[in-house]
Amino acid sequence: MTAGDGSEDTVEAIMEATYRALCTHGYPATSISKIADEFAKSKSLLYYHYEDKEDLLEDFLQYLLDRFEAELTAIETEEPTARLHAVLDRLIPTDLDTDGLRFRRALLEIRSQAPYHDAYHEQFERSDELVLETLVDTIEAGIEDGSFRAVNSQETAEFLYSTAYGAIERGVTLEDMSILERGRTSIDAYIETQLVRYA
Amino acid sequence: MTAGDGSEDTVEAIMEATYRALCTHGYPATSISKIADEFAKSKSLLYYHYEDKEDLLEDFLQYLLDRFEAELTAIETEEPTARLHAVLDRLIPTDLDTDGLRFRRALLEIRSQAPYHDAYHEQFERSDELVLETLVDTIEAGIEDGSFRAVNSQETAEFLYSTAYGAIERGVTLEDMSILERGRTSIDAYIETQLVRYA
Repeated sequence: MTAGDGSEDTVEAIMEATYRALCTHGYPATSISKIADEFAKSKSLLYYHYEDKEDLLEDFLQYLLDRFEAELTAIETEEPTARLHAVLDRLIPTDLDTDGLRFRRALLEIRSQAPYHDAYHEQFERSDELVLETLVDTIEAGIEDGSFRAVNSQETAEFLYSTAYGAIERGVTLEDMSILERGRTSIDAYIETQLVRYA
Repeated sequence: MTAGDGSEDTVEAIMEATYRALCTHGYPATSISKIADEFAKSKSLLYYHYEDKEDLLEDFLQYLLDRFEAELTAIETEEPTARLHAVLDRLIPTDLDTDGLRFRRALLEIRSQAPYHDAYHEQFERSDELVLETLVDTIEAGIEDGSFRAVNSQETAEFLYSTAYGAIERGVTLEDMSILERGRTSIDAYIETQLVRYA
């Protein structure tokens, strides 16, 4: 955002309004005026900052990415297996409430439009990089301290991410949380049998 | 389609026009008039059969599902490992040309709209069932003839499908075919090390 008013509160309020509009209407039906409807402050303030939905969503995706990065950084546990599970809890949550599910749905809709909007493409590419780096670092720490087998960390990270991503996408588009739950169970089994090294 | 003209050729021509419109414009920008532009026969014939895009796409998804089912049925090889790879070749092709990539992209866009259209939801649910049944049958045949280990066929099928789906979705939205290629390599490695049983 090219915000000139300098208020962190305003940015936060705009982002929250965007989140609520996306949860309620989904991506195609979310317009800047629908976001304005969810915005408690002056609507002109919102229109002043953003000329269209794409412009606003670009900032929104950046905001989400920053939050996601902060969440990953906040994971305190150092023990590699527990740390890997903590990362997966954030990647493939199985306790999504209705709003959480709707929001994931909106995010997938936006991602499906990445080929048409360079700014979306860039944010999702960075988001994938962040996930993969986090997984690779965790796997490598586990190999180093002997918790994990000497797997190819890059390939394993990408395999785990694609599996988690596929289960989320399939489950969210069919509104079937059991797909996410079974996905997570399978991933946990994979980690247990293929990655964890028992002395 | 509630086609009353009985011409298989007309149905085929409408479906091909839909395919071309989706490849060219993507889902949101594909309108019934854009499909009509791709349709060589009388446009009024198309408007006569379909009142809107959703109505036409419902038939289009059914058409795709029938074709996909025919493709899977046409796999002749009986040997379980080769058969599993043949199914995966259809699920996660790594040799997509530009049109193929664009079409997959449009399909993901349509799927992202499944929560808003019951008819889409139903088709994608059936499509997932078809994939999972095919994988389960292949895995069970392999367990039976001793080619595969005695894994849980349902869980393994779903794990393989989610991984393939996630790699396709990630690759197609970021227009990066290498994600599909690496996904397929990892799946092949999983089959080789976890599923195939060596005497």
